[in-house]
Amino acid sequence: MELKVYLSGEIHTDWREQIIQGCQANDLNISFYSAVTDHDKSDAAGDVLGAEEKSYWRDHKSSKVNAIRTRTMIEKCDVAVVRFGDKYKQWNAAFDAGYCAALGKPYITLHSEELIHPLKEVDAEAQAWATTPAQVVDILKYIVCK
Amino acid sequence: MELKVYLSGEIHTDWREQIIQGCQANDLNISFYSAVTDHDKSDAAGDVLGAEEKSYWRDHKSSKVNAIRTRTMIEKCDVAVVRFGDKYKQWNAAFDAGYCAALGKPYITLHSEELIHPLKEVDAEAQAWATTPAQVVDILKYIVCK
Amino acid sequence: MELKVYLSGEIHTDWREQIIQGCQANDLNISFYSAVTDHDKSDAAGDVLGAEEKSYWRDHKSSKVNAIRTRTMIEKCDVAVVRFGDKYKQWNAAFDAGYCAALGKPYITLHSEELIHPLKEVDAEAQAWATTPAQVVDILKYIVCK
Amino acid sequence: MELKVYLSGEIHTDWREQIIQGCQANDLNISFYSAVTDHDKSDAAGDVLGAEEKSYWRDHKSSKVNAIRTRTMIEKCDVAVVRFGDKYKQWNAAFDAGYCAALGKPYITLHSEELIHPLKEVDAEAQAWATTPAQVVDILKYIVCK
Amino acid sequence: MELKVYLSGEIHTDWREQIIQGCQANDLNISFYSAVTDHDKSDAAGDVLGAEEKSYWRDHKSSKVNAIRTRTMIEKCDVAVVRFGDKYKQWNAAFDAGYCAALGKPYITLHSEELIHPLKEVDAEAQAWATTPAQVVDILKYIVCK
Amino acid sequence: MELKVYLSGEIHTDWREQIIQGCQANDLNISFYSAVTDHDKSDAAGDVLGAEEKSYWRDHKSSKVNAIRTRTMIEKCDVAVVRFGDKYKQWNAAFDAGYCAALGKPYITLHSEELIHPLKEVDAEAQAWATTPAQVVDILKYIVCK
Amino acid sequence: MELKVYLSGEIHTDWREQIIQGCQANDLNISFYSAVTDHDKSDAAGDVLGAEEKSYWRDHKSSKVNAIRTRTMIEKCDVAVVRFGDKYKQWNAAFDAGYCAALGKPYITLHSEELIHPLKEVDAEAQAWATTPAQVVDILKYIVCK
Amino acid sequence: MELKVYLSGEIHTDWREQIIQGCQANDLNISFYSAVTDHDKSDAAGDVLGAEEKSYWRDHKSSKVNAIRTRTMIEKCDVAVVRFGDKYKQWNAAFDAGYCAALGKPYITLHSEELIHPLKEVDAEAQAWATTPAQVVDILKYIVCK
Repeated sequence: MELKVYLSGEIHTDWREQIIQGCQANDLNISFYSAVTDHDKSDAAGDVLGAEEKSYWRDHKSSKVNAIRTRTMIEKCDVAVVRFGDKYKQWNAAFDAGYCAALGKPYITLHSEELIHPLKEVDAEAQAWATTPAQVVDILKYIVCK
Repeated sequence: MELKVYLSGEIHTDWREQIIQGCQANDLNISFYSAVTDHDKSDAAGDVLGAEEKSYWRDHKSSKVNAIRTRTMIEKCDVAVVRFGDKYKQWNAAFDAGYCAALGKPYITLHSEELIHPLKEVDAEAQAWATTPAQVVDILKYIVCK
Repeated sequence: MELKVYLSGEIHTDWREQIIQGCQANDLNISFYSAVTDHDKSDAAGDVLGAEEKSYWRDHKSSKVNAIRTRTMIEKCDVAVVRFGDKYKQWNAAFDAGYCAALGKPYITLHSEELIHPLKEVDAEAQAWATTPAQVVDILKYIVCK
Repeated sequence: MELKVYLSGEIHTDWREQIIQGCQANDLNISFYSAVTDHDKSDAAGDVLGAEEKSYWRDHKSSKVNAIRTRTMIEKCDVAVVRFGDKYKQWNAAFDAGYCAALGKPYITLHSEELIHPLKEVDAEAQAWATTPAQVVDILKYIVCK
Repeated sequence: MELKVYLSGEIHTDWREQIIQGCQANDLNISFYSAVTDHDKSDAAGDVLGAEEKSYWRDHKSSKVNAIRTRTMIEKCDVAVVRFGDKYKQWNAAFDAGYCAALGKPYITLHSEELIHPLKEVDAEAQAWATTPAQVVDILKYIVCK
Repeated sequence: MELKVYLSGEIHTDWREQIIQGCQANDLNISFYSAVTDHDKSDAAGDVLGAEEKSYWRDHKSSKVNAIRTRTMIEKCDVAVVRFGDKYKQWNAAFDAGYCAALGKPYITLHSEELIHPLKEVDAEAQAWATTPAQVVDILKYIVCK
Repeated sequence: MELKVYLSGEIHTDWREQIIQGCQANDLNISFYSAVTDHDKSDAAGDVLGAEEKSYWRDHKSSKVNAIRTRTMIEKCDVAVVRFGDKYKQWNAAFDAGYCAALGKPYITLHSEELIHPLKEVDAEAQAWATTPAQVVDILKYIVCK
Repeated sequence: MELKVYLSGEIHTDWREQIIQGCQANDLNISFYSAVTDHDKSDAAGDVLGAEEKSYWRDHKSSKVNAIRTRTMIEKCDVAVVRFGDKYKQWNAAFDAGYCAALGKPYITLHSEELIHPLKEVDAEAQAWATTPAQVVDILKYIVCK
């Protein structure tokens, strides 16, 4: 079984690469998908459609362009991994988790122990909670084993 | 048209009461629904099912009990209002917004200008962004007018 | 059987009133729903959320507020009547028809013979094409008869 | 990620070719789908099933044959681009947009500034509004980038 | 539990009345729905929209008007009873059964032993096969008992 | 909020009555639904449709008649309580739980500690696991509180 | 675009072969699917599961085995062609049409003029009515043209 | 037609191998999917995420990890075979059957005559009941024949 995995959330650490490389090292039959993770490029996704004076509308346009990509990927994926780092609001990650939950799409959360309480609702709908990318690799390896 | 409105998010200010009273003052045909907003009671929702030593599992059990209520209400409501205060992570509010988005359920966000950038993905799927409860009342009043 | 009927489209003639009064005169068990049909009020639906310099964003905000009402009504209705007058673009009416079609919601078009060719795709998914409000009343009367 | 893009609307200018060639020039992994864009051929799609004296029924038969193609393509596509030119009614384009909206299928509108007000409801559900085919190419390029 | 029951099929015998009266005699909390069962009236359902020379289009228009009623009722009902008499093609009854099957809506068939073989696919998706209206009453009585 | 609760599973103890009476004692706004819990009556549900020599077909007919009731109730309910006693196979209870899970319908399991391991997949999709009817009453009371 | 076409109905004439060969002669990118069309083999589909004395149960078992194939194919196809010959009841063909209609799956009917009236409800939901296999080939050729 | 078959249930006999080998011997175009059938490995599926003192939570974590695999496979498969052996509770098999039923996914049960009565509800929604793997092979061979 080929598995499609969507990687959602934090963009300031290399957790995506760790998971992808860990799965490749195990030769797993998995395809990975992500939002555009270059922060500046992502914030500017809608700029080509015309400049905006208000930051709200610039953000609005870029977010909607980004959503074409992310919503499509989430709907096509089999499993999502949703990462919450220790900084920033990361409401988009929680939003993606809620989106997955409503679609009945399984997801794994990836966050430290410190975030247990504020993420309790997000974890309650998750299929698993991991604290390291290596654990996620182990879970994915298990899921696609023959 | 009777409208069912779900009020999601921040529990530390009286925004819910302001919206409900504002709608009642206008004699609008609207029913309001919310999660249990008593923080301690909500955290203890699963305690009756047995004590847990690990905080993760206590949170897990309570969140799942709370979700029986919140998921049911969200699926029954016509519109949601999702409030983000200036403090706390409030990932459950972003989760609810994502859940609404995936269901095609319209929602209105309620937050200050400071939160525009971190909430851009959540706002991008919203039908409206308000900064005060009074604006939400005005929008609801418009929606249910004859 | 109580029938919920959504009246979509043209706002410059009294076709809505003719249908509603015709049904009332026949004492039919039908509830009618419509978008806000006061043009100025509808265009200003989002103004309470803050002024916009660009007409695009003013329209955007108002349309999204109006959509809370119209999408909710369309999803709750049993049948829609979609009216195209001889003037104006009326793309929102065609949009509503497409929305109904995708939901499998039956709709009746109401337009003159002159519009047959440009409306052929919209009529192709309709359950009936009427040229007068009186015909719509007759069809509705038939549908809810005992 | 291979992207399936449906191109809906105006058939009198070469906007489709501009988008397709622009994407090919960038070597993007995108497949394009369209209704039959030869106007006469499209109007005659149902003629093989027998002649009709009334134009309504000729249009009806052809539209229903065309819909086998267009509904199938819309349901299979990931994104639609909906083009409104400055002439003609183009209700089928607005119909397609409504159809996409109800399915939760993202779409991009392509039209000039003059059409902002009459297209406000259609734009309100769109993920982006472009004024040139080149902008659409840029957006698609962004969406499928690695 | 109030049960909504749709009665589909044969219109030349009084099986509907037998079921309705049998349920009333037992004071069951059931509402019954049917297509318009007056044959001439049903065939003429679309005539108000204009005369047609070809019988195909007259039938087409009337069938589509009737479908507004029947599709709505089938989608609202909890259970359908689909009756096949010993005469006529009754393809609309089989069509309704297929429609119910695809929606996951339970239905009971009502027909004589002679029709077992030609109705085998229709019976295979049914929840029950009855040969008399009295049996249907007994089944409905059982279903709604406290 | 009025809550519809479906009570599934074991029929040899009075757990249903305990839950219903506990909720009534608390004056909770809850309606309860159940399969026919009279074992003999349930096994004979299809007998009215004709005798069967093979036990398989007798069971088949009765189960399909019962399913009209149970599937309808499960689809209408907001929450299910699925009870596993210490005896018998009770595959129908596990079947109902799987049915709820696929529909995204929340359910609470009710069983003793001894059954944790064999019920692990069923509990994994549940919103809560209770060991006594009184706990279920407490959870329901919490869910419907104002 | 590759098109999946399901061929439903009459098994006593060579209409399937005519359509398949006509499409092959035009080198169309179409895959065809059908129920098992060997009448005896189809009636015996369930015999391997054990003999039945009653014809009802033999038919029941075979029909349910056949439905595994036909339901799967209908749900995977893009378009169905539903053929009604001049003999036999062919309720399974009407059942398939209703199934397609409820799924929003487009279908083309294929029958002679004599059957217009009894098939009016089935035709009313069809995208096209053809009287010869050659017409169906023409329609399919049009649908998949570039 | 390539068929995807999910094999659910009993893990203590070689029924899966018998079916797979029987299909391979017939050169059938079928892919098979299963949960991880190594009992110890399956029970330990969640151990990598951290040890648990309570057996309930160990089971809970492992079951949820396993469900990522099994739910994904069930939703992708065309048909399921659900096996009940003569020992053990096998509630997960009944759960899978209920899950399939709610999704409208066809399934075949595989069990001995002794289990007819306790499995009556599970069999009632099945497309076929087989007593030997060889019968399942025969049914699958029939379903995918040309």
